[in-house]
Amino acid sequence: MTRVSVLFSGGKDSSLAAILLEPFFEVELVTCSFSLLPVGDVAGEAAKRLGFAHRVVRLDMSVLERAYELIIQDGFPRSAINHIHLAAIERLAKEKDNRFIADGVRRDDRVPVPEMSQIRSIEDRYGVSYMSPLKGCGRGVVDELVQRYLVIAEGQSDSVIKADYETEFRELIRRRAGAQRISELFPAHMQSHVIERKKVSGKEVAMICTHD
Amino acid sequence: MTRVSVLFSGGKDSSLAAILLEPFFEVELVTCSFSLLPVGDVAGEAAKRLGFAHRVVRLDMSVLERAYELIIQDGFPRSAINHIHLAAIERLAKEKDNRFIADGVRRDDRVPVPEMSQIRSIEDRYGVSYMSPLKGCGRGVVDELVQRYLVIAEGQSDSVIKADYETEFRELIRRRAGAQRISELFPAHMQSHVIERKKVSGKEVAMICTHD
Repeated sequence: MTRVSVLFSGGKDSSLAAILLEPFFEVELVTCSFSLLPVGDVAGEAAKRLGFAHRVVRLDMSVLERAYELIIQDGFPRSAINHIHLAAIERLAKEKDNRFIADGVRRDDRVPVPEMSQIRSIEDRYGVSYMSPLKGCGRGVVDELVQRYLVIAEGQSDSVIKADYETEFRELIRRRAGAQRISELFPAHMQSHVIERKKVSGKEVAMICTHD
Repeated sequence: MTRVSVLFSGGKDSSLAAILLEPFFEVELVTCSFSLLPVGDVAGEAAKRLGFAHRVVRLDMSVLERAYELIIQDGFPRSAINHIHLAAIERLAKEKDNRFIADGVRRDDRVPVPEMSQIRSIEDRYGVSYMSPLKGCGRGVVDELVQRYLVIAEGQSDSVIKADYETEFRELIRRRAGAQRISELFPAHMQSHVIERKKVSGKEVAMICTHD
């Protein structure tokens, strides 16, 4: 079965993306880390609870340094987070034998929103295909599927343990400019972390099996 | 199991959208028709080959009349096709008990590309959720899945029998302004029509069933 590498933060969106791809691809979850904090372990635990293979990939610190320049220059995180996200996609695209790369980007996300011209450039240069299974889904669909398949913890972004880019990025800002600067640069927002995966019902499984 | 109504033209994109939703929703295919041509029958045949429930919904001729005004005014079909597409989504949204509406819009489609502000307005007014499972997918993903699941016929848009909006829209233009005008207003482009659905492999089915 064809493999897809899904960028995984331990949150509900990347978890759902993996669940949506599972009937069609051999899913592996991949968490990118700059080794500033043990985000790989946090994500690994969540991946285990979801029942997916998982690995951690190290991103070069120069990527985070550039993101830091961008957020200081802009005063808000959009370009910085997009920069890290694109670097993560390109990092996976460079790997030999990776043909499909996915993430949990949603229709209504404000960030990350990768530029399609940059995505197409990566696709063309490395011969990979990128996909965001939730890109065409609004909140109603995501809520329905989360409720059906996941048990999650939600809270403000400074209180939920996650393995997204923001976690280590905040840590770098804290080290460079102090904790106060984080709240100036990052608007507080809701974050989710996956606690558990619900079993699907027998009826759904039966329906899927009738393909054969 | 929660139902989703998938707008269906008999082409590969709406067929793939249905296949991607099948493990998660009870899929029904819906073809909109103005009753100018028997597009409902064409789509019904394709739906039967795919193994999905199918029904035909009549759209009011005023929608096609407005589309005709738009294409004559613009000289190209973008706004006109978007107008019909949005009317089709709204038509389904108005139906009692419809909560999820889907289509085969892809990442790289130039038309239809519904305005998100209009989609959100429909979602809010009728309490429905709209989704485009292929919206986050580039050509590589679509090609992979088509090759795996479908047998299709492809050809220029004036030679392939389809049940999309364009088919009846062209017919209206032919009646109003003559066949010559069609090729002036519609650039010829590749179209697909689903011939058959391939069986999925035993391995894939086994993988899906392990959820239980």
